[in-house]
Amino acid sequence: MFPKPITDLFGIQIPIIQAGMVWCSGWKLASAVSNSGALGLIGAGSMSPEILREHIKKCKEATEAPFGVNLPLIYPRVEEQIGVIIEEKVKIVFTSAGNPALWTNYLKSHGVKVTHVVSSSKFALKAQEAGCDAIVAEGFEAGGHNGKEETTTFCLIPMVAEKVKIPIIAAGGIGSGKSILAAMVLGASAVQIGSLFATAEESSAHLNFKQKVIASQEGDTMLTLKSIQAVRLLKNEFYQKVNEQESKGIDNTELKILLGKGRSRIGIFEGNLQEGELEIGQIAASIKKIKPAKEIIENLWAEFEHTKAIWRV
Amino acid sequence: MFPKPITDLFGIQIPIIQAGMVWCSGWKLASAVSNSGALGLIGAGSMSPEILREHIKKCKEATEAPFGVNLPLIYPRVEEQIGVIIEEKVKIVFTSAGNPALWTNYLKSHGVKVTHVVSSSKFALKAQEAGCDAIVAEGFEAGGHNGKEETTTFCLIPMVAEKVKIPIIAAGGIGSGKSILAAMVLGASAVQIGSLFATAEESSAHLNFKQKVIASQEGDTMLTLKSIQAVRLLKNEFYQKVNEQESKGIDNTELKILLGKGRSRIGIFEGNLQEGELEIGQIAASIKKIKPAKEIIENLWAEFEHTKAIWRV
Repeated sequence: MFPKPITDLFGIQIPIIQAGMVWCSGWKLASAVSNSGALGLIGAGSMSPEILREHIKKCKEATEAPFGVNLPLIYPRVEEQIGVIIEEKVKIVFTSAGNPALWTNYLKSHGVKVTHVVSSSKFALKAQEAGCDAIVAEGFEAGGHNGKEETTTFCLIPMVAEKVKIPIIAAGGIGSGKSILAAMVLGASAVQIGSLFATAEESSAHLNFKQKVIASQEGDTMLTLKSIQAVRLLKNEFYQKVNEQESKGIDNTELKILLGKGRSRIGIFEGNLQEGELEIGQIAASIKKIKPAKEIIENLWAEFEHTKAIWRV
Repeated sequence: MFPKPITDLFGIQIPIIQAGMVWCSGWKLASAVSNSGALGLIGAGSMSPEILREHIKKCKEATEAPFGVNLPLIYPRVEEQIGVIIEEKVKIVFTSAGNPALWTNYLKSHGVKVTHVVSSSKFALKAQEAGCDAIVAEGFEAGGHNGKEETTTFCLIPMVAEKVKIPIIAAGGIGSGKSILAAMVLGASAVQIGSLFATAEESSAHLNFKQKVIASQEGDTMLTLKSIQAVRLLKNEFYQKVNEQESKGIDNTELKILLGKGRSRIGIFEGNLQEGELEIGQIAASIKKIKPAKEIIENLWAEFEHTKAIWRV
């Protein structure tokens, strides 16, 4: 029916991964996704080790299906977060934003399946060498933090597929059953979806943010802040201010001062649409409605099956 | 077998269009492509009306199959070029870089099928309203001139497909049979391929340029010159110079002086890899060899059929 490596690897029914996203994906979203047959991820990027433990515990109570944790490797308390993951016996970890060689062996020695997020073949190979079980290959169109090379999903997936032997999960621009099939045709075994789940009912994002995403049109997101750490976001007042300074050639220190702290929390969690950093992918323009995670997954999968049937004719 | 609107529209066998490209696609390339069952386009962007007439005449001698002309609508002698097209009885025109409302009716009244190149749904709708027979929807990953909104092929094709009724030709990132099928799954009826044909034996690009494209790696192209007219090119000395000035906040007048004239001719046609503008798409990194157009098309189509067969299982 469809490539099996990822569903077998994680013990799930549907080869859809809900991306771990700051301020969106706590236990409510992750458990709702996992209860629907896909794989839910708790996004540890916006959580202290204590908060992460709480979310893992609640997720275990809310689902008996497999779920995982997405862990950016650049935060100062990553060692403590990994301690929590091991103690709480989480068996699936997606690492991102850092070197996969650092923690993969340690996690695997505790029976954890490790997937690393990359934006190029070069880092896909590094993840494979580090012993990762799978990789997420994320294109330029994806929301949030992104690679410098700007390689799009359409170009990235085949290039990565040519280089690595471990299964590939495509990310960036996936928002329909058709795009799931297209990603698989290009060489992916599964997909990771962010934007659509950021607007799910169970997402912990502020309603203001969800409504802003739904109202957004084609061309409303932009990859920006490239001189510090490229991030795709909705173009709001905050973006305009930062972009203006960046295009005037402001240096990185001044830019960091202008940025300040906690911009994604202010925007996504607190719903301040003017001053916050509204991280979302290009596919946002095609999202029409806030829906429960279960309905999102059912719709995606029905469209995938329907599209596949057409191409079978 | 595959969506028919485009093959029927142009009277071709294989739903692949060779993009009209400055300094690459003269009569030799266009006729070789058309003789192989796909659609060849003469790129009028780098041709005076006199030179264009010569290429059309030679193309008619070299093939009995349908071929067309790609015509950027922004050049000063466009009216004369259109005169030549009508006089020489070319029946297929792809217009780009301009307003489709200007010439579509006139061309159609002379029995010409008109396709317009767009980078957003908004302009796709405008092309449909202007009476175009089809559109090329070109993603961010494409080489050469490109849109401001940076929407990728993966996001653009489904969004355009939702809005317009005329057939869609996907462009940007297409370099394999798999990607042809993926584009069709996303909603396209055909594909337009540039980079691969820029390196074809029959392309009039300089051997230096073709070899540079073949040697290029993932991440070696960049969309640049956004403040004047966004263009994707290989990162060479010329790019570094322009990019440095742009990121320092140089104004448009100064930037235009720095650019000078004829950069694409210098780079692509004369083979000056340091000082020229080397326009090519992201998919360049996956091109391994200079091949005749016929072989390129046969390989693409065989892989398309093979991939489709897999998904039929």
